[in-house]
Amino acid sequence: MPVCQIVHLNGSFLPLAEARISPLDRGFLFAHAAYEVTAVYGGRFIDMPGHLTRLSRTLAGIALPDPLSPSGWEALHKELIVRNDLNEGIVYLEVTGGAYDVRDFAGPETFVPTVFAYADSRKLIGAEARDGIKVVFLDDTRWKRRDMKTVQLLSQGLAYRTAKARGADTAFMVEDGFVTEAASSNAWIVTPSGEIITRHLSPAILPGITRAGVMALRGKGGFAVTERAFTPDEAVNAAEVFTTSSGAMVAPVTHIEGRPVGDGKPGPVTRQIQRLYYEAMGADLAAVAPWAMERA
Amino acid sequence: MPVCQIVHLNGSFLPLAEARISPLDRGFLFAHAAYEVTAVYGGRFIDMPGHLTRLSRTLAGIALPDPLSPSGWEALHKELIVRNDLNEGIVYLEVTGGAYDVRDFAGPETFVPTVFAYADSRKLIGAEARDGIKVVFLDDTRWKRRDMKTVQLLSQGLAYRTAKARGADTAFMVEDGFVTEAASSNAWIVTPSGEIITRHLSPAILPGITRAGVMALRGKGGFAVTERAFTPDEAVNAAEVFTTSSGAMVAPVTHIEGRPVGDGKPGPVTRQIQRLYYEAMGADLAAVAPWAMERA
Repeated sequence: MPVCQIVHLNGSFLPLAEARISPLDRGFLFAHAAYEVTAVYGGRFIDMPGHLTRLSRTLAGIALPDPLSPSGWEALHKELIVRNDLNEGIVYLEVTGGAYDVRDFAGPETFVPTVFAYADSRKLIGAEARDGIKVVFLDDTRWKRRDMKTVQLLSQGLAYRTAKARGADTAFMVEDGFVTEAASSNAWIVTPSGEIITRHLSPAILPGITRAGVMALRGKGGFAVTERAFTPDEAVNAAEVFTTSSGAMVAPVTHIEGRPVGDGKPGPVTRQIQRLYYEAMGADLAAVAPWAMERA
Repeated sequence: MPVCQIVHLNGSFLPLAEARISPLDRGFLFAHAAYEVTAVYGGRFIDMPGHLTRLSRTLAGIALPDPLSPSGWEALHKELIVRNDLNEGIVYLEVTGGAYDVRDFAGPETFVPTVFAYADSRKLIGAEARDGIKVVFLDDTRWKRRDMKTVQLLSQGLAYRTAKARGADTAFMVEDGFVTEAASSNAWIVTPSGEIITRHLSPAILPGITRAGVMALRGKGGFAVTERAFTPDEAVNAAEVFTTSSGAMVAPVTHIEGRPVGDGKPGPVTRQIQRLYYEAMGADLAAVAPWAMERA
């Protein structure tokens, strides 16, 4: 969906068309910027503290001061969705190293960040969650600190383009013989014997907020998760495969490299995790995701 | 030096303060942009064809159309230095995936690039060339396609900051036990037996235009270059070390990790290569680099 009309830039709320930055901004010259995408459902934010903690960690990792307190960030997010009358969708937030009249790799001793944020109305529980997505494998060419959520996203953008060109929706990135994660989501498999596996946290992958949300449901859902790297072959031969992300929540993967995963339909474990996750965020299952109640 | 006052943005020449881009530009959201930095000396560009060829290759590699012909790019560069009365310095050019009203990793079928360029007045043959620079070793955390010159420069920016904090000027990036290159220049060593070594071209490093310029001087200078990866130990124990880049040309490295290289002063091979390079670009050696004539 197009970005909502009222955006936030450096303390002001203004029409998107009036939001303009300097081309000397370090976000534009050096990819020197952190970002977060926080889901909004029923007018409420999903795990805002998780996003703010990660933002804070990324900012520290890229030498940027955190320009606002947690309550300041919350107020900014809230005002964006109120001004745009957003009920379901996401808020995108980017914090950069700021703009200076000289292009210097090192930059000044202390940065004065640029803060940009917008809201985007979209269905979080939509067709992809219902029908599933298709993936292909691609080499993971990203930088080595993927645990920090920065705008160094060129590999991911190119991966999406290649995936699309090959008739898929996204790519599973492969490095040293193992799947790291998907182009903008964490990757999960369910083995034929029912073991749920997702890669362990390390600098190789982003510590997904939705990934953490699913982990938090283990007790209630009565399931266990093995955290380890898995191979492309394990994914191809899995009973079920799914991804987690703030923008698409829990998305079944029905096809890999053109071949069906299991019977080519979202499986029972994926459906169970979707149900648990949607319930936890306050969704009316019967109304918005009746399909998640099948195969229970 | 601060950026010159008249810049180029999407076909217009305008004051820097009026140059403004959308925060939805893919250069800002995804680091989806190519760039070049071309040296200007005596009002002329140094190896413009080399820069334009590399730009064209980077653009193709990141799925962007090349918005101008070589003569169009040359005219743009020339107008920038004329309007800013620039005699010595650099022109920075960035071409991004453009701005759209939706943040989509894959982007539209065909991109409409944003073109931004500015001139920057600076001494190309300055104190660093005369006195040398200090380097430290750092892990190379960059993405895997460093042969494409993109704005995914966060690792480099952080490397410069760390180097500065440790009393150095830049960093030699190390990967799998070998030096790849410096944070924004190619790295060279001269062994105690006089062999000149620089890393072979591959996706691990940028194919530097100044690197190519030095290679082109082999016949005239009567020297050979071995193209292979070298280790940090080889650099520490080298007789001489230097870097090449468009912005600093040929810069002697006098200290590594706080210890002197050789006798801690720019060595004779480095001085010879500086002389040859400066002469080739039309510099009056006696006037601008008398120090390069010592130790001949």
